Amino acid sequence: MSDQYYGWTGRHIRVDLTRSDIAVVEDDLELMKNYLGARGVGIKIMMDEIDPKIDAFEPQNRFIIATGPLTCMPPAGNRTYFVTKSPLTGGIANAGVGGYFGAELKFAGYDFIIFQGKAKRPVYLWVDNDKIELRSAEHIWGKGTEASEELLIAETDPMAHIAAIGPAGENLVRLANVITGGVTGARAAGRGGVGAVMGSKNLKAVVARGTGGVKLADMAAFKQHVGKALNFWNNPSESCIKVLADHGTIGVVSFTNDLGILPTRNFQTGVFEGADKISGETFAEKYSVRGATPSKACFACPAGCARLSHVKERGYEGKGEGPEYESVASLGAVTSVDNLPAVIKAGRICNDMGMDTISAGVTVGCAMELFQRGYLPEKDVGYALMFGDADGLLDLVQKMATREDFGWILGEGSFRLADRYGHPELSMTVKKQELPNYDPRGVKGQGLAFVTNKRGADHCRAEVNCSEIYETTMLGYWSPDKDVDRHAIKGKAKMTKHYQDYCAWAYDSLGYCYFLLMDTPEQDVIDLLESATGVDFGGVEALNRVGERIFTLERLFNLKAGLSAKDDTLPKRFLKEPMPEGPSKGQVFEQEQILPEYYRIRGWNQQGVPSKKKLEELDLSLQI
Amino acid sequence: MSDQYYGWTGRHIRVDLTRSDIAVVEDDLELMKNYLGARGVGIKIMMDEIDPKIDAFEPQNRFIIATGPLTCMPPAGNRTYFVTKSPLTGGIANAGVGGYFGAELKFAGYDFIIFQGKAKRPVYLWVDNDKIELRSAEHIWGKGTEASEELLIAETDPMAHIAAIGPAGENLVRLANVITGGVTGARAAGRGGVGAVMGSKNLKAVVARGTGGVKLADMAAFKQHVGKALNFWNNPSESCIKVLADHGTIGVVSFTNDLGILPTRNFQTGVFEGADKISGETFAEKYSVRGATPSKACFACPAGCARLSHVKERGYEGKGEGPEYESVASLGAVTSVDNLPAVIKAGRICNDMGMDTISAGVTVGCAMELFQRGYLPEKDVGYALMFGDADGLLDLVQKMATREDFGWILGEGSFRLADRYGHPELSMTVKKQELPNYDPRGVKGQGLAFVTNKRGADHCRAEVNCSEIYETTMLGYWSPDKDVDRHAIKGKAKMTKHYQDYCAWAYDSLGYCYFLLMDTPEQDVIDLLESATGVDFGGVEALNRVGERIFTLERLFNLKAGLSAKDDTLPKRFLKEPMPEGPSKGQVFEQEQILPEYYRIRGWNQQGVPSKKKLEELDLSLQI
Repeated sequence: MSDQYYGWTGRHIRVDLTRSDIAVVEDDLELMKNYLGARGVGIKIMMDEIDPKIDAFEPQNRFIIATGPLTCMPPAGNRTYFVTKSPLTGGIANAGVGGYFGAELKFAGYDFIIFQGKAKRPVYLWVDNDKIELRSAEHIWGKGTEASEELLIAETDPMAHIAAIGPAGENLVRLANVITGGVTGARAAGRGGVGAVMGSKNLKAVVARGTGGVKLADMAAFKQHVGKALNFWNNPSESCIKVLADHGTIGVVSFTNDLGILPTRNFQTGVFEGADKISGETFAEKYSVRGATPSKACFACPAGCARLSHVKERGYEGKGEGPEYESVASLGAVTSVDNLPAVIKAGRICNDMGMDTISAGVTVGCAMELFQRGYLPEKDVGYALMFGDADGLLDLVQKMATREDFGWILGEGSFRLADRYGHPELSMTVKKQELPNYDPRGVKGQGLAFVTNKRGADHCRAEVNCSEIYETTMLGYWSPDKDVDRHAIKGKAKMTKHYQDYCAWAYDSLGYCYFLLMDTPEQDVIDLLESATGVDFGGVEALNRVGERIFTLERLFNLKAGLSAKDDTLPKRFLKEPMPEGPSKGQVFEQEQILPEYYRIRGWNQQGVPSKKKLEELDLSLQI
Repeated sequence: MSDQYYGWTGRHIRVDLTRSDIAVVEDDLELMKNYLGARGVGIKIMMDEIDPKIDAFEPQNRFIIATGPLTCMPPAGNRTYFVTKSPLTGGIANAGVGGYFGAELKFAGYDFIIFQGKAKRPVYLWVDNDKIELRSAEHIWGKGTEASEELLIAETDPMAHIAAIGPAGENLVRLANVITGGVTGARAAGRGGVGAVMGSKNLKAVVARGTGGVKLADMAAFKQHVGKALNFWNNPSESCIKVLADHGTIGVVSFTNDLGILPTRNFQTGVFEGADKISGETFAEKYSVRGATPSKACFACPAGCARLSHVKERGYEGKGEGPEYESVASLGAVTSVDNLPAVIKAGRICNDMGMDTISAGVTVGCAMELFQRGYLPEKDVGYALMFGDADGLLDLVQKMATREDFGWILGEGSFRLADRYGHPELSMTVKKQELPNYDPRGVKGQGLAFVTNKRGADHCRAEVNCSEIYETTMLGYWSPDKDVDRHAIKGKAKMTKHYQDYCAWAYDSLGYCYFLLMDTPEQDVIDLLESATGVDFGGVEALNRVGERIFTLERLFNLKAGLSAKDDTLPKRFLKEPMPEGPSKGQVFEQEQILPEYYRIRGWNQQGVPSKKKLEELDLSLQI
């Protein structure tokens, strides 16, 4: 649209679903410079356009699909973010995903799409380069993501890419996600219930096809920086890429179990006796379509951490994408189901229904513990729901998505489930969002990130564990400190803040996959960004301030939405019950010591509210 | 089914919507004797079959449509009750309605229907005597109640009667009601959001056609008692029937305004300067199809309090049922809209969308006060929302049903609206349900009934005001005391309890319209009941104990659902702000004095929990 844009396309789409109104609008360059893209631009728009107090299902909630300036660029520019108010946490949601959708959207000529309002009947948006239209989705409503994508491909373009919800999103399941796939298979934008917001808007899918390109400010320099980055990633002794390529993320199962932080039986322990049966090694041997070899890659990625599975065991037959570590751990270890074919099938159901595997697994695990302790009557479930019950897992994951019978309350997530049965403390959540699969008693910095990340318990918005378990894994190059004691809290507040701010700009707002960036020094990331956009961002410190601005703006959003310091807490289990066994035996999470320090380092008061001085420093004074 | 049943048909229907399973089941005669029917049988089934803590929209919630033993009998056996867990209050809901539906259901051979589960796609139940089936309602989903009923009549039987929801119920609007009508026009089962529960079950309607009869135990005696009752009602100097016949309920507008208790501008005052413009007299003169003459009657009723309106004013044109007093007062005085054609149209929209007029009007009034005080930004509504804005009223009532834009939060009801804007105290509700149109500062016993009735603020489950304003109106014959001072609290706790218990069995569980029963001495009601059923109920005290049992069981349901004494309160306005003008000037509601006394009289502790002794006395010990 304008000569001033490199990296960014310079345009976005605004869709008013209530009025079936579509507009193409030029980006505000200052906004893009200050918030970069993806997660950053998403929170800025949310803050500017809605009252954070609204219910997530109100039509005025925005649903933003945003790329970054480096989405669609090599070597791993494949990220897309779905930003909205979360129906799960009541705060900000920003689910990210790889795959091909974001690159396709940029090739069509748009950096992001803002949806507002609610369609009267189910629709999908078809973005075909300059031709954009809303089409009826009534014939697709009710269908799984796989069938939906097949139908949408058939009626749009064989090369189109799709972001769609399944029945879970339609049924306003608070754990619903968005699946991007199309001809290339399912990748999930998983957390915060973003799929349910699409469902509340009667928006079944967005289909994109683009045949254009995006201009680079300095092609020669950019190429050179890409080459340098590829060298980092190709160094097998330093890189996490090799681990990912060799095993996919499922390779982490054995590793976290050896560390004693693999959440087992709803986080009652960190050592799972059945870990071997659901490990990456077992998967590669028995169910991976290509063994330990990469099966497929997201757009422009040299790693290819995705796996394709093929299960032939009777009752669990099927082919599908994944499973990833988080899915196997949540659906397997947390529920104590060591039947890998069943765990893989549960993951497939989640993908087809459009539902977050972490939250789904931890919610079933929560139900199992409620039953174990006699709080959940057998008649409510229909059978005795024991830990390790593979059939129960499959039954409940399916019912959760369709909200059938007991599935209804499961679809509300584990917090509302446990609260209903009078024991909210058995919900393994922060801000009502289920914990990812690192027991925080064994990785204290990661625990602090769970407590303070803005979208609830969340490992992707600060993978502090990469530094904390660096000595014993290939994962995680970048770290301000080496020789980190994962059980210590000293220094972790500072480390967590640093990760969070860096993550906010470098991992979540540029459009590159963070698995790849973990191995890349900060300045090299900046070189890629600046050669692509032609903007001088002023160096590492200035960009970390951009990250802090994004993170802090999200905090302001949450505070305005009604969340407060009292929501910055892990479940009581981690604070009071020492880890019963394994290498982290005896550990608890010392929240009362570490959280005040974290607030101080952030420049927030002890009620978790950013100081006026801090807001001025971040140019956020006008946002309060 | 069995020879032992007189009055009752002896059978009911159970429908599992999840499994499309329909069963006809014999009634439990002991249960019918202990709980009579309608509201009484409804709460007993709810208590036995569900965990009161569930969310109202969970499939396991029951939706019960129940008649009484005298439904379908002369002289006014036309009542049907819709009992379920309320999505508005979180406690019990039991919305009652006249019309023809209940009589038709009994002629088909059934006392009640229990729905459980959730249909996968929209359905309706077609009860054609012994033939009962679930049919697709996909072609009707989204349509107003009027169009829905026309379509359903066309595809079932021209003489069928229908209970249906409109778009409000489908959209899970917490104020949604059930409209019964068919060929005879709309009667609304209004309160507690029962229509939203139907919507959550994908149950669009129940259509009934019956050509059978119901046996009477002693026909000769029954006829004689009917004759006696008709004599009471035909005595013009004693009866409320004449008032109802002459003006319909809309005749009450002038009366409550003269008393200074007509809620105006969201209950800021009790005197409405525009009362004349929306009065029964104005209506009869300008818009009533038959002037002051009765327009239509419910099944078997000699009164005919219903009115039909015909409005020709441009922009408000239309014909329709009503309006009733509560609709005109809520949609008119509470919003300060004195444009009667607009008020009538707002009522028509509510009926067609399937939405409670009381809650709809009071919710708009609440929004107007939020705007007046600067708490509700103009941009959220789209315009300045002033009291008296007729177009605003119509716009918001429509959007509330479809949940469009600002209508979304309106559809959650005034409590959640006001809470969202930080001022829950401006929601004129008890237990989140909007107040009917008697300012409690001017009728203290009625105020206490609002506070303590189980389904939230509610005038129908104890019309104490009939005794309190007896000296100045024809309404209300039955009263344990005469010469009641409406501003006094002395004796009101006892009176309210008495009304509540009597109402629970005589008005709400037998199936007779309570307007008619108000003029009938207790023993005559019992004579009708006993000659119809052949059961010896043991006299007035025994039946009042049945009423107390029903009322107390509802209390237990609410307590188990999580409500408590803290929910037994009027909004602060009535406790702290003296009525500013009119005959009740200076009055507040002395809740702190009257509520402890009421608890004591009930045999409850000061936390509002029934004592063990009281439960034993009512044979409810096993219910806790």
